[in-house]
Amino acid sequence: MDPLVIFTPSGKRGRFSVGTPVLTAARQLGVDLDSVCGGRGICSKCQITPSYGDFAKHGVTVAENALSDWNAVEARYDQKRGLKAGRRLGCQATVQSDVVIDVPPESQVHKQVVRKAATERDIKMNPATRLFYVEVAEPDMHEPSGDLERLKSALADQWQINTHALRVDLPVLAKLQPALRKGGWSATVALHQGHADMHERVLDIWSGFWEGRLYGLAIDLGSTTIAAHLCDLRNGEVVASAGVMNPQIRFGEDLMSRVSYAMMNPGGDVEMTAAVRDAINALMIEIAADGGVEATQIMETVFVCNPVMHHLLLGIDPVELGQAPFALATSDALSLDARDLDLAAINPAARVYILPCIAGHVGADCAAVALSEEPDKSKDLVLIVDVGTNAEILLGDQTRVLACSSPTGPAFEGAQISAGQRAAPGAIERVEIDPATKEPRFKIIGSDLWSTDDGFAETAAVTGITGICGSGIIEAVAEMRAAGLLDASGLIGSAEQTGTARSVPEGRTHAYILHDGTAERGPLISVTQGDIRAIQLAKSALYAGARLLMDELKVDKVDRVVLAGAFGAHISPKHAMILGMIPDCPLDCVSSAGNAAGTGARIALCNRQARAEIEATVRQIHKVETAIEPRFQEHFVAANAIPHATAPFAELRKVVDLPNPSFNTGGDTQGGGRRRRRRG
Amino acid sequence: MDPLVIFTPSGKRGRFSVGTPVLTAARQLGVDLDSVCGGRGICSKCQITPSYGDFAKHGVTVAENALSDWNAVEARYDQKRGLKAGRRLGCQATVQSDVVIDVPPESQVHKQVVRKAATERDIKMNPATRLFYVEVAEPDMHEPSGDLERLKSALADQWQINTHALRVDLPVLAKLQPALRKGGWSATVALHQGHADMHERVLDIWSGFWEGRLYGLAIDLGSTTIAAHLCDLRNGEVVASAGVMNPQIRFGEDLMSRVSYAMMNPGGDVEMTAAVRDAINALMIEIAADGGVEATQIMETVFVCNPVMHHLLLGIDPVELGQAPFALATSDALSLDARDLDLAAINPAARVYILPCIAGHVGADCAAVALSEEPDKSKDLVLIVDVGTNAEILLGDQTRVLACSSPTGPAFEGAQISAGQRAAPGAIERVEIDPATKEPRFKIIGSDLWSTDDGFAETAAVTGITGICGSGIIEAVAEMRAAGLLDASGLIGSAEQTGTARSVPEGRTHAYILHDGTAERGPLISVTQGDIRAIQLAKSALYAGARLLMDELKVDKVDRVVLAGAFGAHISPKHAMILGMIPDCPLDCVSSAGNAAGTGARIALCNRQARAEIEATVRQIHKVETAIEPRFQEHFVAANAIPHATAPFAELRKVVDLPNPSFNTGGDTQGGGRRRRRRG
Repeated sequence: MDPLVIFTPSGKRGRFSVGTPVLTAARQLGVDLDSVCGGRGICSKCQITPSYGDFAKHGVTVAENALSDWNAVEARYDQKRGLKAGRRLGCQATVQSDVVIDVPPESQVHKQVVRKAATERDIKMNPATRLFYVEVAEPDMHEPSGDLERLKSALADQWQINTHALRVDLPVLAKLQPALRKGGWSATVALHQGHADMHERVLDIWSGFWEGRLYGLAIDLGSTTIAAHLCDLRNGEVVASAGVMNPQIRFGEDLMSRVSYAMMNPGGDVEMTAAVRDAINALMIEIAADGGVEATQIMETVFVCNPVMHHLLLGIDPVELGQAPFALATSDALSLDARDLDLAAINPAARVYILPCIAGHVGADCAAVALSEEPDKSKDLVLIVDVGTNAEILLGDQTRVLACSSPTGPAFEGAQISAGQRAAPGAIERVEIDPATKEPRFKIIGSDLWSTDDGFAETAAVTGITGICGSGIIEAVAEMRAAGLLDASGLIGSAEQTGTARSVPEGRTHAYILHDGTAERGPLISVTQGDIRAIQLAKSALYAGARLLMDELKVDKVDRVVLAGAFGAHISPKHAMILGMIPDCPLDCVSSAGNAAGTGARIALCNRQARAEIEATVRQIHKVETAIEPRFQEHFVAANAIPHATAPFAELRKVVDLPNPSFNTGGDTQGGGRRRRRRG
Repeated sequence: MDPLVIFTPSGKRGRFSVGTPVLTAARQLGVDLDSVCGGRGICSKCQITPSYGDFAKHGVTVAENALSDWNAVEARYDQKRGLKAGRRLGCQATVQSDVVIDVPPESQVHKQVVRKAATERDIKMNPATRLFYVEVAEPDMHEPSGDLERLKSALADQWQINTHALRVDLPVLAKLQPALRKGGWSATVALHQGHADMHERVLDIWSGFWEGRLYGLAIDLGSTTIAAHLCDLRNGEVVASAGVMNPQIRFGEDLMSRVSYAMMNPGGDVEMTAAVRDAINALMIEIAADGGVEATQIMETVFVCNPVMHHLLLGIDPVELGQAPFALATSDALSLDARDLDLAAINPAARVYILPCIAGHVGADCAAVALSEEPDKSKDLVLIVDVGTNAEILLGDQTRVLACSSPTGPAFEGAQISAGQRAAPGAIERVEIDPATKEPRFKIIGSDLWSTDDGFAETAAVTGITGICGSGIIEAVAEMRAAGLLDASGLIGSAEQTGTARSVPEGRTHAYILHDGTAERGPLISVTQGDIRAIQLAKSALYAGARLLMDELKVDKVDRVVLAGAFGAHISPKHAMILGMIPDCPLDCVSSAGNAAGTGARIALCNRQARAEIEATVRQIHKVETAIEPRFQEHFVAANAIPHATAPFAELRKVVDLPNPSFNTGGDTQGGGRRRRRRG
């Protein structure tokens, strides 16, 4: 009988005749064993580890000579690059007798990669663009065919790739003949294999076996910032991250003011499109340099963004998104060439994938959150909230998923707040108020010390104490409520009512002084009644959106809450619940997903199958338009109080040791001391 | 029983319930009845003619009221545009009882169109790009979807188009939303439906029902000239034709000198590519203006060209085509965007189709000849010869087709001839020599008179008599041979040998004076021994190529000969046979195909199915490389004589009243008087 070959960890097994290369056996069994050179002993990606001895559970005994002897190719590779002890090259070692062979993780094509940079996340690698080494037949005058046609045959024969409709752009085609001749009729091609029924494309070509790597960019194109992660398409590793301000801010801080700019200024949309594309090109150049990568090695880019940014990126006037019925020009996912978007900074043949939009107010960013958090696969009912200038909200489980967006406005990002500022060094980001003394302490971005700690003044002197950012204002308002400085309606009490001189009159209302830097010529940072109102409006909108989806599903509570985006990364979930930003839920069922939209973008970048999956998922998501739902307004009004009085909130108060929420009664002194720090 | 509906001329018949629109019945039966608006009474393309009375052969009697009464839509159309007597709109008239309905040719989508301009030719219309009128659902906030996705649904529902992978370039997508709103949720789209498994694309969009037409360009990109026909994509009509010199001439007259230029000058290929693309853009603008067409209405372009021009058009260095094994970068047909070739003059979304190349020396122009002349469908053995600077030769029948190219050089085009010039006004294009007197007469381009006719001098004064073009030199040499001025080896006799003072010494050889214009300060136009040798080399190469293919098929003769290109259009087949340019064949089996390559380009332009067919045909054509076949050289040497002495040639001599082919014997006086004029 032929020798038995058993692969671990897959457990796949089969019998192969003596002399069969391990790589061949793996392929025939469908074992995930990598190879770029197709078994020619060049790429060393197919390393395996044979095991010897008795394997009772497999029912085999493996002899020392179960594989062929170490050969010259392996010896040369070991000498040149070093082969780990016990390792063999799967394309060189041949089966001699029964053997158990382990495929180490780094030799798997579809390896699970644990993210280290960016948000931690396992992503299964299945990139759309990969390298393939091929040996191409020489031209024959008796059977004339083009070099491209012989390359196609080689890809089909050596890699089982369907090259029937393979596309090669002319600039790459122009490189083909010199590359093949220089490489002695061998070449490495970067091949893009789309999902669904997209045609295969050769994106670039190098003579012989090319040792380089391909990279991709996951870009989160926000209204305010553009954030990018540069990923190694072989293992998903984030090799550099960078961000820039969206230059469209000069046309309008929020999305609707940009839509207005396009409506009021002929050509305004073209101007904004050019601005954002220029910024992306600059970001691409910067991140490639940061990562020590040639920009031409960037072959894939994935964008996630809200619908207005989506249209402005594509060069489509967003005017229809500014008025009912909020019709998107296109909602499906898009696969484009980089040149379609004038993205000249990266490889000219690079491909761009843009996730599908869910509705006119629920964009590709929300689709990316769905891809990352998979509400459609959840067994329990999950509410996922991603807060930006608009909040995207997903609610559902494996039976049904709903989505909406809610116009929270920019208050959560520190805008429209008296001392508000963007999250930047010097901004107050954490706040605690002692319920007994009503005295605050805070942290600023750029320092790990509390304002009451020794040495704070020295570190703060570097940046100054410049204002209060989104997470800071949310904590401040929640702490003010917890400390009895606010009543349930959101009214700031007077010094008499609150018993602290930090409560000062401001017009007909009061303000709470968080930090007075005027003695050092710094700013006076206080929370005004207007700030409280802005936060109330924002949190009511957010809450109302979530409630609307819950109404649609006819549920009164959710099993768990996932906070995504800045919310999860920078805003304390506990304070969010004190404020009533999100529906009640046991605090231990609230988790943070970090930058879920960015994670979704990275998943789509690293795994082409995920693209097909999210496209199918999005088609199944039921969209609820908040703008036309009368109940949204009802929920919005009802959600104005801090806190809204429902039973689970009492639970929460216990957890956070919340004092009696009226001005007249003091609380205990434990404050928010047990809060976890969320910023990663 | 339901009424019987019989369509003519197809004879298709079926029973349909009372009230069925004629257009619906036609569609269900697969009758070819046109419609752009999809049956909404807008486009009037579905006109039909009902017949009344007894139809014994169909077994029906048609009552006067077999169709519904003339309705308001038809009345309005008749008032606005006029409807021919007896005509009805197929989408409005409904079946009431048994009826016979004629579909006039202009109402058929796949009409056979008889060409009037360019070479006469019936082409079945099946253009890749057509207009479709659609009514698109309005956006619905409860079921949000993009305008594009609703357009796709409309195309799928209303036109049964597979829109699964429909592609819309971003600039067209940017026009979608305004077009749909302006058109009250209706639009006309220019839809490109490729052949094979290419994806459908929307190339342009107009609001509402657009009355315009789409156009295409068939471009014959030669080494020397670029010729274009502008065709109406609805009916194939050639609305304008134009040509320009190929500006690459400044880099080298013939192809190999251009290849050398690219080899010797770094960037030379880029320079030549830019030059030819610029010229094509200029030609596009000119031809659109000539045809009274907006350049943006040009949506399709088909190119045919030799391999070197093919690569230079595509931006590929042609260096490999200049040396064995003459490897093409790509041989398959190409479907491109106009922008890929920097063709900015026409619609930015226009598609470009380039026919496949057959081999390194046998290009897309030869494929176009095969598409036009269909040797693969011929029942008898046909030899097709297309002469340019290279000759492309096809030989075969429905069982097998062979192809080769032969390096004839530019002599047939008047180059390398002492008094040679391009075919232009003033050039001698027809020659007769009286075998008795040895006196010549000739015609020049621009005049219909013989040089011996009254009034010739006056008409010739307009242009002058400037030189001798390709067809003129061929006729001159053949006539010199027929008149006994040349011996079989091609030697020009002295005045003593020939008995005419027009035979004058020139160095060690002689020349024959065709026209002495020196008295009027014009040129002395003579045929030198060098000219004879150049023609002998060219015709030997041509003949040797044809013989090589005959050897390959193991045949000694062919059933018929088709002369294509300049050969068929300008060169007299009879003189070609006297010279021995082509293998012997009864003269009545020699036909001219005119500009077959150009015709092939127009067929591919007007009929997408023809593209698939020629791609399949080319794969079946067996290529013979003349450069490496020793027998080519043998045939070449053997073919040097004029005429080569084979039996059929004796036949030919009778037909053309050929005198005894030696210096010593005079012939009769009938000369070439019975020759047919070939120039159309």
